[in-house]
Amino acid sequence: MSGPADAPTDFASDNHAGAHPEVLEAIAAANAGHAGAYGADPWTARAEALVAERFGGDARAFFVFNGTGANVASVDALTRPFEAVICTDVAHMNVDECAAPERLAGVKLLTVPHREGKLGPADLELWDSRKGDEHQAQPAVVSITQSTELGTLYRLDEVRAIADAAHAGGMRVHVDGARLANAAAALGVSLGELTAGAGVDVVSFGGTKNGLLFGEAVVFCDPVLARDFLFTRKQLGQLPSKMRFVAAQFEALLSGDLWLRSATRANQMAARLAEAVGAIDGVEITYPVEANAVFARLERPVIDRLLEALPSDHPFYVWDEADGVVRWMCAWDTQPGDVDGFADAVRQACA
Amino acid sequence: MSGPADAPTDFASDNHAGAHPEVLEAIAAANAGHAGAYGADPWTARAEALVAERFGGDARAFFVFNGTGANVASVDALTRPFEAVICTDVAHMNVDECAAPERLAGVKLLTVPHREGKLGPADLELWDSRKGDEHQAQPAVVSITQSTELGTLYRLDEVRAIADAAHAGGMRVHVDGARLANAAAALGVSLGELTAGAGVDVVSFGGTKNGLLFGEAVVFCDPVLARDFLFTRKQLGQLPSKMRFVAAQFEALLSGDLWLRSATRANQMAARLAEAVGAIDGVEITYPVEANAVFARLERPVIDRLLEALPSDHPFYVWDEADGVVRWMCAWDTQPGDVDGFADAVRQACA
Amino acid sequence: MSGPADAPTDFASDNHAGAHPEVLEAIAAANAGHAGAYGADPWTARAEALVAERFGGDARAFFVFNGTGANVASVDALTRPFEAVICTDVAHMNVDECAAPERLAGVKLLTVPHREGKLGPADLELWDSRKGDEHQAQPAVVSITQSTELGTLYRLDEVRAIADAAHAGGMRVHVDGARLANAAAALGVSLGELTAGAGVDVVSFGGTKNGLLFGEAVVFCDPVLARDFLFTRKQLGQLPSKMRFVAAQFEALLSGDLWLRSATRANQMAARLAEAVGAIDGVEITYPVEANAVFARLERPVIDRLLEALPSDHPFYVWDEADGVVRWMCAWDTQPGDVDGFADAVRQACA
Amino acid sequence: MSGPADAPTDFASDNHAGAHPEVLEAIAAANAGHAGAYGADPWTARAEALVAERFGGDARAFFVFNGTGANVASVDALTRPFEAVICTDVAHMNVDECAAPERLAGVKLLTVPHREGKLGPADLELWDSRKGDEHQAQPAVVSITQSTELGTLYRLDEVRAIADAAHAGGMRVHVDGARLANAAAALGVSLGELTAGAGVDVVSFGGTKNGLLFGEAVVFCDPVLARDFLFTRKQLGQLPSKMRFVAAQFEALLSGDLWLRSATRANQMAARLAEAVGAIDGVEITYPVEANAVFARLERPVIDRLLEALPSDHPFYVWDEADGVVRWMCAWDTQPGDVDGFADAVRQACA
Repeated sequence: MSGPADAPTDFASDNHAGAHPEVLEAIAAANAGHAGAYGADPWTARAEALVAERFGGDARAFFVFNGTGANVASVDALTRPFEAVICTDVAHMNVDECAAPERLAGVKLLTVPHREGKLGPADLELWDSRKGDEHQAQPAVVSITQSTELGTLYRLDEVRAIADAAHAGGMRVHVDGARLANAAAALGVSLGELTAGAGVDVVSFGGTKNGLLFGEAVVFCDPVLARDFLFTRKQLGQLPSKMRFVAAQFEALLSGDLWLRSATRANQMAARLAEAVGAIDGVEITYPVEANAVFARLERPVIDRLLEALPSDHPFYVWDEADGVVRWMCAWDTQPGDVDGFADAVRQACA
Repeated sequence: MSGPADAPTDFASDNHAGAHPEVLEAIAAANAGHAGAYGADPWTARAEALVAERFGGDARAFFVFNGTGANVASVDALTRPFEAVICTDVAHMNVDECAAPERLAGVKLLTVPHREGKLGPADLELWDSRKGDEHQAQPAVVSITQSTELGTLYRLDEVRAIADAAHAGGMRVHVDGARLANAAAALGVSLGELTAGAGVDVVSFGGTKNGLLFGEAVVFCDPVLARDFLFTRKQLGQLPSKMRFVAAQFEALLSGDLWLRSATRANQMAARLAEAVGAIDGVEITYPVEANAVFARLERPVIDRLLEALPSDHPFYVWDEADGVVRWMCAWDTQPGDVDGFADAVRQACA
Repeated sequence: MSGPADAPTDFASDNHAGAHPEVLEAIAAANAGHAGAYGADPWTARAEALVAERFGGDARAFFVFNGTGANVASVDALTRPFEAVICTDVAHMNVDECAAPERLAGVKLLTVPHREGKLGPADLELWDSRKGDEHQAQPAVVSITQSTELGTLYRLDEVRAIADAAHAGGMRVHVDGARLANAAAALGVSLGELTAGAGVDVVSFGGTKNGLLFGEAVVFCDPVLARDFLFTRKQLGQLPSKMRFVAAQFEALLSGDLWLRSATRANQMAARLAEAVGAIDGVEITYPVEANAVFARLERPVIDRLLEALPSDHPFYVWDEADGVVRWMCAWDTQPGDVDGFADAVRQACA
Repeated sequence: MSGPADAPTDFASDNHAGAHPEVLEAIAAANAGHAGAYGADPWTARAEALVAERFGGDARAFFVFNGTGANVASVDALTRPFEAVICTDVAHMNVDECAAPERLAGVKLLTVPHREGKLGPADLELWDSRKGDEHQAQPAVVSITQSTELGTLYRLDEVRAIADAAHAGGMRVHVDGARLANAAAALGVSLGELTAGAGVDVVSFGGTKNGLLFGEAVVFCDPVLARDFLFTRKQLGQLPSKMRFVAAQFEALLSGDLWLRSATRANQMAARLAEAVGAIDGVEITYPVEANAVFARLERPVIDRLLEALPSDHPFYVWDEADGVVRWMCAWDTQPGDVDGFADAVRQACA
């Protein structure tokens, strides 16, 4: 996938990687004559069953187009108009979805300052004093990102503690799992243990960053919550007509261990990169490298030299311009040689 | 594409067809290493240029996931919250999008009774007496569907007359072009002549029904109107991250004549079907067959016998249960043999 | 109230009348020192109890600012985002609220052609064939206007039949009761018999047109439906801070028979007007005159002469310009002399 | 207004005060026969002219029901769906409007930590790095509260500096002026100097807290921005039908110096209270007392004793339970004796 004719592997985003060859094969295989639209096809039935198997027998999966759609549809399904979602200040839905949750689902996001990308059960109490006060949007959902936007992980007991606190407070737990596979791979647990098993109610289960062409799934661990979701998905513009082509991709991902192989590879490459650059004078790793992201603080001139030295148009993101923090992402297709070459470039820029 | 191992070709929907092989090849070819996300890739640049070429040099294209998304984003871009959209009562956005325009874009749809699926310039005057009246949502957009939901066409002069009336009244013209290719093919005009050339402002240009895996384009004939559309697309959940895979499909469609070949084939098969079934006693063709749809009135027992006799789970839709009207759609992959076999089945059901 | 120094009594709208003197007195009496805001005051408690008494013991009242607010908040409380409201094509919420229901509550209005301003139980079946179809917004509420926008009435058995059909279909019944008092007065029934007693679930109970300065009440006949309405009212901008001044008005209206006296007067004046003008050659009464409105068809030159002859700037509305139909409204303060003088003017214009 | 038969004057909210007698007189005087609805009456014309006179000749006023309505309508008028509003974390629209801005106007609120209730020009740069980035809602409005929720003031030069920075960044300035009169009175400037004169674009000009029964005005300093506001006001449920009764109140407020007298009185009483309690051991004034609010930190047992000792059901609010901060508000009707009695009670509770 990264031969001489191809674009160089960059470290900007796991969205920059293409689709896994097995995924493309599944699409091609599904391209066989006519099939029912909007999910009335055998691929969708099989893929839904596979998700249920992976997340827990009762789980119900709904395939959608993209991550913003999955997140907005999830919180829309879990809230009434006067209810709110608690999340961290760095949550994707707070900073990278162009206010889609506010506008489409009508929810207010109540943010808490993150600690290494995460929030904890005590944060849920911040709005307790205004419970029942009609002047305040009422928290109804806690949304955590797993693995987090900063490449860190919630351990099983952390998820469970948040879920317990949420449920005790009458709230539901949503997981933005655009990189859930990376988290499960890193923690050595199943997708179900990490979600339904830890008390999570609804998951945006990411496929795109895990090697699909496109496609995410909204997974309801509690099927009762899914009762009207067919309408929610359709109304929010997230119902694919030729659904079989999303389903076939998820079937490729989940019928064997493709999801795990791909996520593990990305995680390993991030660990390799962290180890290599962590040893370089002038590089400070800013967050624990627990999944497929490496965040590092560099001097600004170093950043500039590095950006210039690398072949890709957009080799990585400067995450925090003021603080000189950069983000380096590894993907399912990142190779050891890519990492070593990149580490070399960092070393030279720091020299 | 419809060999013995495949699902039978049904006449339920052009969404039931798969993707054209040339489209799948284009996707596979685009799956080459890393590429910028959200459209920062060479495939997107090329596909955007191709759309501009086809629709008129100034046209600006934005690729999105699906038809509901394209329609909602279009009217959102063209309206302020107190403005409304005039369309027919059978418009897809009025009856098949689960109130997405109302909820997401906040617009009111002002409907007029269709005549063979169409509206005309005089319909635009229906709300004139309340222009400027703050108690009434103000019409700002006319949306026509081309080819229509009933398989009919607006001729160039009809589009032009609507556009002139709309512009004279300070309104914009949107075309729901989920089947625009079928219309252009049937009328023997270019995509540009049928839209920008006839005064259309914004088009939902359909790819899915024209043989793509998924993907539509919102095309602004007047680029000034596109100024903020990047935000609209993102906020409405219609921004594909691995954009190159949508763009590559459109490149396959538009770089040669694939769009035209596929649409022409579907239209020809509908004409063949109309001719065959029109000769059957007991079949009344209810609308002119101008694109790829055949609507017919049958006795209810005939419908039931036909549904039972056909191999597919869902061989076609009963469009109007009360009136006994059915819809038969042809697709890019419909074969003469499929049509002839289907006509035979109709003949036997009528016997 | 209509002495020589005052503006002339016109027949344009029952909103053109001022406030009843007893209402103003109640406001002045409530202006006594400090009181809790947002309803935490004794006036509100008393007025809520009075509404419960009038509408049925379990009824719960929430005071709001205006009729659009009452209607939008009602349907918002009764629907989820993918649900719709069935109403007539002439419903106030369809034609006179600037798409507030669509934009604020996100609902689609499914309209049926009115018969003398009304719909019937059979209209509720029009969307049955698409029940459960995710592509179609699902009807969840039937909203009827009582008395109707055309000055007609639903009899008790008509309301009951609609309510039975609605409930059988899993829907709720909302009454836009901007002129509910006029309907109850005309039918000789209590407010409760006309609503809770006939199966109605939620009422926008109008005060403004019944002689208040401003103020309406959303009344939940079934208190379970009111559970979260405190939030709905606040979020939709309909929570008065100095609530006592709305409540005091409703107390004035409902503690005795002020509501009935005022409504009866307005109805009687409309009957008097209908009788007088109905006898004039050139005046065709177009709808049964059952409440406080008279609709009549006149030749256009007659309308013009009449508009010129009358002293007020805006003596009445031309309801349907094309059809030459005018609307003449009577209010709580319309005097017999006002009616007779107006009828004289009509007579002269017709001569 | 606070004789023996009246409810005691509390210090909970300036919403707890009633209406000024001159305001009630104006309402009674306006209750003269019929008048055009929705603002087509002479009171509205006069009141609009008075606002223009006070705020600057070009200013355009629109009367609405309440403060949430004024704020939501203002930001709705100033933003497109993908745009955002910068405000402090303690802004009323952020914490006391039940997410109405998010849900109704669809805007995201981008909050900055307040300093004594205020923000400054530098805060506007916080989102500069993502200008033009479609993944981020784009700041289009800065909203400041004057006087602030914490009883402090923006000086003229502070407003001007914010306005200059906003305009330089392509943003508009909104003032939540629920207590604008208190600010103008305290600063000794006119309403116009404090708004249009300092670069403000749109103002929610509060009437209710300044002695009205109800009613606020949205004032566009730049009339171009008001072009479509008639529709915005109507659609958001903020158009009073018997508008003359809102307008007559504003006429009473602005035709002479009632607005100033009332605001000055409230400010003076707050100063008197601050002086009295500031001298008490155990009371720490937490913010500069610049308008009509006093914030103080007390030991929790002191708070409890004080709440018990006072006659009113709700004598004041505990603003921050964790920090032991209380809020004491003075109103247009607060008397020196009320203040002195309250200070005595505080003294005794602290003893």
